Amino acid sequence: MRLSRFFLPILKETPKEAEIVSHRLMLRAGMIRQQSQGIYSWLPLGKRVLDKVCAIVREEQNRAGAQEILMPTIQSADLWIESGRYNDYGEEMLRITDRNKRAMLYGPTNEEMVTDIFRSYVKSYKDLPLNLYHIQWKFRDERRPRFGTMRSREFLMKDAYSFDLTKDDAIHSYNRMFTAYLRTFDRLGLRAIPMRADTGPIGGNHSHEFIILAETGESEVFCHRDFVNFDIPAADTDFDSVEGLQAVFDKWTSLYAATSEMHDEAAFGAIAEGERLSARGIEVGHIFYFGTKYSAPMGARVQGPDGKEHEVHMGSYGIGPSRLVPAIIEASHDESGIIWPDSVAPFDVDVINMKVGDAACDAASEKIYEALSNAGKDVLYDDTDERAGAKFATADLIGVPWQVIAGPRAVAAGDVELKNRRTGERVTLPVEAAINKLAG
Amino acid sequence: MRLSRFFLPILKETPKEAEIVSHRLMLRAGMIRQQSQGIYSWLPLGKRVLDKVCAIVREEQNRAGAQEILMPTIQSADLWIESGRYNDYGEEMLRITDRNKRAMLYGPTNEEMVTDIFRSYVKSYKDLPLNLYHIQWKFRDERRPRFGTMRSREFLMKDAYSFDLTKDDAIHSYNRMFTAYLRTFDRLGLRAIPMRADTGPIGGNHSHEFIILAETGESEVFCHRDFVNFDIPAADTDFDSVEGLQAVFDKWTSLYAATSEMHDEAAFGAIAEGERLSARGIEVGHIFYFGTKYSAPMGARVQGPDGKEHEVHMGSYGIGPSRLVPAIIEASHDESGIIWPDSVAPFDVDVINMKVGDAACDAASEKIYEALSNAGKDVLYDDTDERAGAKFATADLIGVPWQVIAGPRAVAAGDVELKNRRTGERVTLPVEAAINKLAG
Repeated sequence: MRLSRFFLPILKETPKEAEIVSHRLMLRAGMIRQQSQGIYSWLPLGKRVLDKVCAIVREEQNRAGAQEILMPTIQSADLWIESGRYNDYGEEMLRITDRNKRAMLYGPTNEEMVTDIFRSYVKSYKDLPLNLYHIQWKFRDERRPRFGTMRSREFLMKDAYSFDLTKDDAIHSYNRMFTAYLRTFDRLGLRAIPMRADTGPIGGNHSHEFIILAETGESEVFCHRDFVNFDIPAADTDFDSVEGLQAVFDKWTSLYAATSEMHDEAAFGAIAEGERLSARGIEVGHIFYFGTKYSAPMGARVQGPDGKEHEVHMGSYGIGPSRLVPAIIEASHDESGIIWPDSVAPFDVDVINMKVGDAACDAASEKIYEALSNAGKDVLYDDTDERAGAKFATADLIGVPWQVIAGPRAVAAGDVELKNRRTGERVTLPVEAAINKLAG
Repeated sequence: MRLSRFFLPILKETPKEAEIVSHRLMLRAGMIRQQSQGIYSWLPLGKRVLDKVCAIVREEQNRAGAQEILMPTIQSADLWIESGRYNDYGEEMLRITDRNKRAMLYGPTNEEMVTDIFRSYVKSYKDLPLNLYHIQWKFRDERRPRFGTMRSREFLMKDAYSFDLTKDDAIHSYNRMFTAYLRTFDRLGLRAIPMRADTGPIGGNHSHEFIILAETGESEVFCHRDFVNFDIPAADTDFDSVEGLQAVFDKWTSLYAATSEMHDEAAFGAIAEGERLSARGIEVGHIFYFGTKYSAPMGARVQGPDGKEHEVHMGSYGIGPSRLVPAIIEASHDESGIIWPDSVAPFDVDVINMKVGDAACDAASEKIYEALSNAGKDVLYDDTDERAGAKFATADLIGVPWQVIAGPRAVAAGDVELKNRRTGERVTLPVEAAINKLAG
């Protein structure tokens, strides 16, 4: 993508309404624009990151055996009356009356609707286990939306729902998602720690939040320091292995970890002092096992091997991609801007032509741009006539992992400079060598 | 994907509420489920097709120079009051009041919001041309939603918006989208004919609908028969060539074509009788040039090369992916079910194991399933213990382009049977040959 044609509205000033660094950087880097309170548009740079986050979430959901569907944003109030939850969300639920005076709502979550889908089609235990997920916009009319897309009213959520014959089977489904979440956050460049959690309006009695540590976190969290170095389950993990996944769960819950709501000061105090970690955290995922809370009132039953009808055991599993984007920035930035992990970077390489119009600089830049694009890399090519300082500032702000700097002196010697955004390391090397290094 | 694990709720009976064949087939094939009047969930098979349609739409938008963003579904009424269009949609607009008593709405289209984004950032003609698009859910509270996702209330739309300094530039932007649409529909396996159209609440005076011919079409259309054989612009079309794209436009508008609203009986009558085509059609795309209709009231101006402020000339360009899926089915099905074009088929190959549990059939089926999956094909593997007749009926119903039938007799001879869903042709060939043929 040529920057001269790319819609990248960089802000020179720091927006004063933004209270946290990720919100400031997303606005300054032209990733998002606020349309109404707590409602955002994603501009091209932001959309690219959001898509890469969703792609990783999707891959790990599929790997764990979940199947993607897409439920609508607008729901009938009837389903929520049936589950007994119509009033639980209070003013946070955006209630709507359609032209036929029917009570509708903008879904804040989808337990009711997916249970309705399940009960319409699935009649036998032979069709279990089943896990259906979607990545869809939700709306919660928060009293105080803030921090940009970290806590917005309209937000993107991946929500998965598992259905099983027994509680034991449901716990295995829970462990599948638990394991998938560990892998997902790791691939996003985050260290997330599962913590026992309160269940709120979703309900149930077995629930974990996945929390990343960040100074700007909303909640206070307490855990054992060893979590920081725990191994992540491998890509070839057998998600059908009940024992294998239980072992993953057991390991990752073997040490103390809790949010402030669930905190047990005595248990935390029992940890050796140097191993206690007390910090602020950002919730990036939340999983629940809630048994028959929805299947019972809504009549979601299957015939078991005993020939009898059984209410299915359910769980739900949420990750918010529109919240993950700022969470990644909170965890990875410096005073110059964002530092994207490779896996979600909007571009892999930022080619900076230092003297547009100079035949040698143009030729070297174009050559690198084309060669890396042909190698399947996402390349941003700064072919604008901005001055050098502005180009460097933009490159650092938007945080692409590698910068290739084609300046007149280096190019005259057949070289370009390579800068690693994360480490700041710079190396001068021949054009071909730069291409070979980055095309890999 | 193993069918034994795939959520594919096939309906045995023909749903009586479905009036047209695409609606019947989408329900029977377990692609969609109605949640409320005119509001649908997309189940796994349908979601796969919808994604493939969106991917083609996106590729052709990008090729034509449009840039992807994502605007929210919920908008402030203020923008629509500013443009003067708040009442134009009448009861079709889903109006919402949030917890702070602010007037909001579920976007039926996005001219206002994108104009607001534009005016916030773009100040100079040097940043033009600009074309921003998104693929997002819309809501129109139709009096009579029907025909499944062909005319639903919540529907997915790709809407692009172009911004130019002058009318001439805007016409070139219009021609870019005109050309992109010809390519898009062709890649979706559709023959779409551009027809002069009424502009309705979008406004403007230069507008074309893209219509595919289908017996179940909502509107009566009239055109020259030669359109059926016109060449489609190539993938290497130069979208920067003003003359080149004008030539595409001129050719595709050189012969008579009009919907009933714009029909001129005399002009149509002047066509030689054998070359007249009078048929029913389905609108699958609609493009508009509307000049300064939104930029004037909303103050979207840029500084021109003359140093003065100019209101920008705009156009908008819509395609509905959730409508395209049934439109493709209307254009491509038979009495047994759907016949997907290769480009949007939910799977490339359907491997049918005729005798699950038989060692030879299992081995041959698994081998083909793995080999084709490793070759990057989307493969459905029917490993269920249904009887042969039901397996064939499902395969034909869901319309995957190629069926590989592994039955005991053929497999004993080292062979499988290959069936082309569209032509019905069957050929028996060795397992390796089948893999080689389909992996290509």
